[in-house]
Amino acid sequence: MTAPDINSPAEQERYERGLEVLATVDGGSAPAVMDSLADVAPALAHHIVAFGFGDIYARPGLDPKQRQLVTLGILTALGGCEPQLEVHLKTALNVGLTPTEIVESLTHAAGYCGFPRALNAVTVAKKVFAERDLLPIAT
Amino acid sequence: MTAPDINSPAEQERYERGLEVLATVDGGSAPAVMDSLADVAPALAHHIVAFGFGDIYARPGLDPKQRQLVTLGILTALGGCEPQLEVHLKTALNVGLTPTEIVESLTHAAGYCGFPRALNAVTVAKKVFAERDLLPIAT
Amino acid sequence: MTAPDINSPAEQERYERGLEVLATVDGGSAPAVMDSLADVAPALAHHIVAFGFGDIYARPGLDPKQRQLVTLGILTALGGCEPQLEVHLKTALNVGLTPTEIVESLTHAAGYCGFPRALNAVTVAKKVFAERDLLPIAT
Amino acid sequence: MTAPDINSPAEQERYERGLEVLATVDGGSAPAVMDSLADVAPALAHHIVAFGFGDIYARPGLDPKQRQLVTLGILTALGGCEPQLEVHLKTALNVGLTPTEIVESLTHAAGYCGFPRALNAVTVAKKVFAERDLLPIAT
Amino acid sequence: MTAPDINSPAEQERYERGLEVLATVDGGSAPAVMDSLADVAPALAHHIVAFGFGDIYARPGLDPKQRQLVTLGILTALGGCEPQLEVHLKTALNVGLTPTEIVESLTHAAGYCGFPRALNAVTVAKKVFAERDLLPIAT
Amino acid sequence: MTAPDINSPAEQERYERGLEVLATVDGGSAPAVMDSLADVAPALAHHIVAFGFGDIYARPGLDPKQRQLVTLGILTALGGCEPQLEVHLKTALNVGLTPTEIVESLTHAAGYCGFPRALNAVTVAKKVFAERDLLPIAT
Repeated sequence: MTAPDINSPAEQERYERGLEVLATVDGGSAPAVMDSLADVAPALAHHIVAFGFGDIYARPGLDPKQRQLVTLGILTALGGCEPQLEVHLKTALNVGLTPTEIVESLTHAAGYCGFPRALNAVTVAKKVFAERDLLPIAT
Repeated sequence: MTAPDINSPAEQERYERGLEVLATVDGGSAPAVMDSLADVAPALAHHIVAFGFGDIYARPGLDPKQRQLVTLGILTALGGCEPQLEVHLKTALNVGLTPTEIVESLTHAAGYCGFPRALNAVTVAKKVFAERDLLPIAT
Repeated sequence: MTAPDINSPAEQERYERGLEVLATVDGGSAPAVMDSLADVAPALAHHIVAFGFGDIYARPGLDPKQRQLVTLGILTALGGCEPQLEVHLKTALNVGLTPTEIVESLTHAAGYCGFPRALNAVTVAKKVFAERDLLPIAT
Repeated sequence: MTAPDINSPAEQERYERGLEVLATVDGGSAPAVMDSLADVAPALAHHIVAFGFGDIYARPGLDPKQRQLVTLGILTALGGCEPQLEVHLKTALNVGLTPTEIVESLTHAAGYCGFPRALNAVTVAKKVFAERDLLPIAT
Repeated sequence: MTAPDINSPAEQERYERGLEVLATVDGGSAPAVMDSLADVAPALAHHIVAFGFGDIYARPGLDPKQRQLVTLGILTALGGCEPQLEVHLKTALNVGLTPTEIVESLTHAAGYCGFPRALNAVTVAKKVFAERDLLPIAT
Repeated sequence: MTAPDINSPAEQERYERGLEVLATVDGGSAPAVMDSLADVAPALAHHIVAFGFGDIYARPGLDPKQRQLVTLGILTALGGCEPQLEVHLKTALNVGLTPTEIVESLTHAAGYCGFPRALNAVTVAKKVFAERDLLPIAT
């Protein structure tokens, strides 16, 4: 019993479904990180898309804004996930969370995982907001 | 320069304000955990209420359902916070998140902090849902 | 674009494949934890089996003993995953790691994630070994 | 019931008190990190000062050297908090911990959270000590 | 090149030295946890004593009270280390930290690693203090 | 009772033994990180070599490839240990793990500690593989 070939038609179909979900939340371009995995960890890239987006993100039960709030909480708490936090902060904006809601989420996080983790997340948010000319945010 | 006495009128006012916020989200009874701190860490209990609820939770920018989604993400990712997760799962229900939304949040978390952390959180959720006769949840 | 129904034929086939993989490493009985999720988080249970075992564990590139060594390292480092560590210590024995190799892995871990995490893992290992009459282990 | 406006007189008074505490331990200049938050997360900056320093740091019960030892332990164990560790290593020196005491704390940490976390903390300490011409440290 | 036998005279001497250090801080009885490791992970037990106490704890540069402050910070931040935290809270009392200093350390920790981790640590502290009739603590 | 002087003959002998072990797995040159510690944390450097390699790594019970699998699992799960992960990915190659086995370990890790931690580890692996002209890896 071995895992399905990620290049099989069935897996490619799962992958395509994930890509479509990803496109609806990341603004139409698959994150560059996926491409960068092609020569080193193609199976990981495949499953992030096929499983992470196609199987999980696309599930009913939570809308994309809710999913991003949970995700921001997780990535802030984990720490050391600045590259992923940057991707998900952009996604958060793409799906309609306002900069104010995003910053409020990170400020809220301080009580649960401490000021240092919250500060690190806000530093990434500032970079993302600056790139989109969203500073200063309304408070 | 020393910190204000937590029994000063100004601090008691801050505490009362936090308690009012807490009462609106926890169903009217301050968590028993606050009482249990009285003889060992009264300042910690004071600041959880005065700062955590009075200063942060009561801020505009996110509604209570959104705050609970962020909090569930954080507590799931941290791990080892089962007592606090239990309190916040109850709060999540109190502020109007459905069991389906809660479980979907924890299922979503698996991709970001792994299956073990998600499983531990679901185990606590099952206990909370069972106490409120909410099982099986709709999916 | 929504996620596939976990009860669809295609997903059930993925699930069955995962169950077969799981059966080869856990000694023939799916962990009770899967059953306990049925009324609270069936999608999480589905994906642990379909994705975790069917898509990942069954991949070539590492044999089961190697996968368990990586897994023991991760669960020891994460901390707070004692229930999952217990399952995976049993799996480690099932796939042929010796008690000595397992304990050596946890002793090795002390240098990388500290004595407390290693001690907690060893405490679970002692329980698993005792249930299988494997104490004292050879050193 | 909403949180107090951080620009209200009462909150500004709390903030000023926190700034005074901060000034006594950071050498007279509020960390630049506070300024960098002004356009993105002013409430977070406010509460780090008003709560973190005014309400907590200024409490009796521990002197600043003791507080910094606890803080160094926490930041080393958390990992991924190098910017905050740099600030707190400088504070540690400011309040009178010697380089030897600081390094001994990080060496001590290795047994509890592993060599990698201790190494990352020492790397930051080396940078801070070098800027102050404190290398080599006495051992 | 293999590691020295932990039963060799040189290693036994290192172990004895660690035991002596341990005895000075834990009140004269080696923690029961060491004995519990004898049939499952004797090398881990050996090195906790020989390395952790004989090589590190006994170093100059920090006194035992300072070491315990660092250790409390680390164990609080790590989470999931309640058994080790209990041992080290007792050690903290043994070496002369007051209950007030200990609780202040855990209250201080809240700002750096969040209220949930601080609450879990205080829960263990309350148990330890109760066993020694130290409640309520002076604040 | 004080810790042994790390410059004593007995400790230097322990250090030399550790260096020999280190040389067999890191390709003959002690990592530069050890040298960089000389003026700031020589005792930490000493014990990483004497204890980490001389006492632990050199123990029987696991071969070097097995130790590296456990280590990769731990460092991936901890997060924020990219410098140490880079060293240990090189060691993994040196002791005979193939790039495919290494990437499979990191892909496997995703299910246990989440995609973000796995992605960060793969990013470091890609850098190490590129330096050794090992891309694209076989899958």
